[in-house]
Amino acid sequence: MRPNELTATEALSLMRKGELSVEAMAQACLARVEARDDAVRGWAYLDPQAVLEKARVLDAQPVKGPLHGVPIAVKDVILTQDMPTQHNSPLYKDSFPRLDAGCVKTLRAAGALIFGKTDTTEFASVTRRGTARHPLDPTRTPGGSSSGSAAVVADFQATLGLGTQTAGSTIRPGSFCGIYAMKPTWGAINREGLKMLSPSLDTLGLYARSVDDLELLADVFDLEDRAPPPAFSLKGARIAACRSPAWDKTEPATREAFERGVALLREAGAEVEPLTLPPAFDALPEHQATVMAGEARATFLSEWRAQGALLHDDLKALAAARGVTRAQLLTALDAAAACRVQFDEIAARFEAVLTPSARGEAPQGATTGDAALNAMWTLLHAPVVNVPGFKGPNGMPVGLSLTSPRYTDRRLLNAAKAIAPLFEARGAA
Amino acid sequence: MRPNELTATEALSLMRKGELSVEAMAQACLARVEARDDAVRGWAYLDPQAVLEKARVLDAQPVKGPLHGVPIAVKDVILTQDMPTQHNSPLYKDSFPRLDAGCVKTLRAAGALIFGKTDTTEFASVTRRGTARHPLDPTRTPGGSSSGSAAVVADFQATLGLGTQTAGSTIRPGSFCGIYAMKPTWGAINREGLKMLSPSLDTLGLYARSVDDLELLADVFDLEDRAPPPAFSLKGARIAACRSPAWDKTEPATREAFERGVALLREAGAEVEPLTLPPAFDALPEHQATVMAGEARATFLSEWRAQGALLHDDLKALAAARGVTRAQLLTALDAAAACRVQFDEIAARFEAVLTPSARGEAPQGATTGDAALNAMWTLLHAPVVNVPGFKGPNGMPVGLSLTSPRYTDRRLLNAAKAIAPLFEARGAA
Repeated sequence: MRPNELTATEALSLMRKGELSVEAMAQACLARVEARDDAVRGWAYLDPQAVLEKARVLDAQPVKGPLHGVPIAVKDVILTQDMPTQHNSPLYKDSFPRLDAGCVKTLRAAGALIFGKTDTTEFASVTRRGTARHPLDPTRTPGGSSSGSAAVVADFQATLGLGTQTAGSTIRPGSFCGIYAMKPTWGAINREGLKMLSPSLDTLGLYARSVDDLELLADVFDLEDRAPPPAFSLKGARIAACRSPAWDKTEPATREAFERGVALLREAGAEVEPLTLPPAFDALPEHQATVMAGEARATFLSEWRAQGALLHDDLKALAAARGVTRAQLLTALDAAAACRVQFDEIAARFEAVLTPSARGEAPQGATTGDAALNAMWTLLHAPVVNVPGFKGPNGMPVGLSLTSPRYTDRRLLNAAKAIAPLFEARGAA
Repeated sequence: MRPNELTATEALSLMRKGELSVEAMAQACLARVEARDDAVRGWAYLDPQAVLEKARVLDAQPVKGPLHGVPIAVKDVILTQDMPTQHNSPLYKDSFPRLDAGCVKTLRAAGALIFGKTDTTEFASVTRRGTARHPLDPTRTPGGSSSGSAAVVADFQATLGLGTQTAGSTIRPGSFCGIYAMKPTWGAINREGLKMLSPSLDTLGLYARSVDDLELLADVFDLEDRAPPPAFSLKGARIAACRSPAWDKTEPATREAFERGVALLREAGAEVEPLTLPPAFDALPEHQATVMAGEARATFLSEWRAQGALLHDDLKALAAARGVTRAQLLTALDAAAACRVQFDEIAARFEAVLTPSARGEAPQGATTGDAALNAMWTLLHAPVVNVPGFKGPNGMPVGLSLTSPRYTDRRLLNAAKAIAPLFEARGAA
C-alpha cells in the first residue's frame, strides 16, 4: 500500500516505528496529485516544493505531535498564513493574509502538514461548481461547497481534509465521494479565520477515510461530550431511523441505502425504531434557509458595498436579502432554539439517529447537489457523521448520516466506529 | 471649534460645502494626538504620515461616501489590511495580516478614514488595563476592553471609534468616558475579522460623540429594524425603568444618575414605569459568564496549544475552562434563548428600557471595571445605547443605558436622540 493510501492512524503508526518519514508521505501524496490532478482538479493552491520543505522540517523535529506529518487539505475559505486564501472569488484573487485560522493553527501545533488549499464554491455559498470533479466520474460533482477537500481525500491525494458546513457542505460531499465526514456540534471548534456566511450555522467540517482518523481530529480539536460517553455495542443498541422532514426529496439510491442500513443494523442486533419528529420540526429546513439568507445580508455587506458587481448573482441576492425580514430571521432563530432543546431530549433516548446524507448519488451537470437532507441538522447544531458504504444504480457512493444531541460528538463517533465496518462490508453487497 | 472637536455629522456638512478638507480634519486630529498622547496613551498603532496620505487620496476622490474622510479609531482586535493587529498579546506582536475585517471594509467603502489601532485588554478578554488612561484623570481607567477607542473619541483625537462587546466592553467605557456608545443587536453587523472570544456574545461596538453620528454608522452598517420605527416623542413616551438583576452592584454615582434620569424623563412628559423582569432573568449574568468561559475554551484553543505560556493567566484559565462543562454551557445557551423571546415581548410594550451602564464612575487602579450591569443585555442580544450626561461624586462621567428588543436598533436610536439633549443638559446640573 502506498503511503498516500494509508489512513492517518496507519501512517502515524509507521512513523512512530521509524518506517515512514513525513517527506516520503508527502512525496507519495504529491505523486498522486501529479497523476490525478488533471482529472480531479481539487486544488486551488498547491506548492509542491513548499510542501516538501515543511515535511523535512517536521522530520527534523524531535517532538512529534499527535498529527505529526499528516497531510491535510484545507478548503480555500479558511485562512492559512503560508498560502493564499481566495474563496473562489475574483474579489480575493491572490489574497494572501499572513494569518492562520484558529483551526489551522491548532492543526499545526499538533504537527500536521498543511498541504494545500482546495476548491470551493464561491465563498462556500453558491451551488455553482468550481473546478473539482468527482474522482470516480468527471461528469459528476464531488458535492459542495467543500468540493476540493472531499475529492482529494477520496482520491488519496491528501489524508485528511477541512471543509465547512452552513447547510450541507461537508456531509453531502462526504456522501457523494464515499468518505467519512463529520460536522461537529456547532461551536465546538473555533471558526475564527473561516469566511463567515451565517454565524448561527457555520461549522468547521472534517474529512477522513476512517472513523479512527475522525477520532484523532476530535482529540486535537478538544471535542468533549456533555457526559463521558458509554461503551457502544451494536447488539442491543437503540438506533432511531429518522426519514427526516425532507424524505420526499430523496431518490431511490438513498431510499434503498436507508432501508438496507436499517436491515443491516437489525441483523447485527441493534434495536432500530422509526422516529418521526414533532410537527414543529417540519419547518426547520425552511428556517435554515431563512437564517442563512437573513444572516448573509450582514456577512456579505462589505463585499457588496466594496465590489458588489464581482459577486456571483446568487450572492448578490443573498447580500441584498431584502426577501428576508428581521422579523422572519428572529422567528426562525427562536424556533430553531426551541427545537434544539426538544431534539436533544428526543435523541438522548437513542445511541444514535440514522438519517439520509443526500438526495442520492452525486449529480451530473453544473450543480454541487442539494442540501435538503442536511440543512435541518445544521440548524439544530447537532453533530453529524457521514458513514459511507452504499452504492447507487450508477455505482456511485451513497452514505448515511448518524446524528445525536449537541455535545455528544464522542458518543456519536463510538457509534460510527461500530457501524462503519458493517456498512463498508455489506452496504453495497 | 477645531475640526477634531466636530462630530462626524458636523464635519461632513462642512466638507460637503467645501469648507473642510479631509487633510485638515486629519491634521487637527493628529495635532490633538501629538498634544495628548503622552497622557491618554490610547493608540496601539498610529502612522501619521500614512494617515495624511490616505486623507489626501480621499480629498482627490470625486465621489464622496457617506463617511467621507471621517477619522475612525479601530480597536486592535479588528483586522486592518494597512496596519498591524496585535491584540495586546505577545503572541501577535507585529502581526500584520493583509486583510480588512468586514466592518473595516464596509467603512472604507463608505469613504471613512481608518485612522489607527487602539489599545485593548489582551484579546479583548482580561480586565487588566492596557496603556490607555482616562482622558479626564490618568489614575483612572477609560474602561475596557475597548479602552483606547473610547478614550481617543472622548479626547477628540478621533471622531468615531470601533470597539467590541462580549460582556460590557463597549457600553461600560462609553459610560466612563462620557460618550455615546452602541452595542447593536447581536448578528446585525458582520463580525468577520474580529478576534473571537465567545461567538454567541461577541458584537461590534460603536463610539461617537452624538446620536446623529451613531445614526450615520447605523446607515452604513445597514441596521434595519424588524418593523419601521415610529416617530418618537418624549411626551407620553412609555419608558421602563429597569434596575436589572445586578442593581446591588451599583454604587451611589449610578443610583443617583438612574433616579435623576427617571425624574428628568418624567418632567419631560414620559410615562416611566418600574420594570422588574421575571425571576428567570436573575440567572442571566451568571449564564453570560458560563457562555463566555464555555465558548472561550474553543476560541483560545489554538493559542493555548501553540504558545500557551504567553497567554495572560486569566486567559489560560479561560482556555483550559475545565470549570465549565458542556452541559452547563448548553443550559446557559438554552436559558438565554428562552429569555430572549420573553424580553422581546416585555420590552416591546415600551419605547425604551432605561437601565444602568456601569457600577459607577471609572475606577482607579489596575482594573478596567466590572461588566456586571452589561452582561445580561449582551446575552439577550438586545441593542444597547449608552447616553452620557451624569456625573459622580468625583466629577467623572456616568451614563445610562437604553435598550429594547432585538432588531429595534433604529427605534432605540430615535429614543436616544430625544433623550440625549435632556441628559446632556440637565443630568449633571
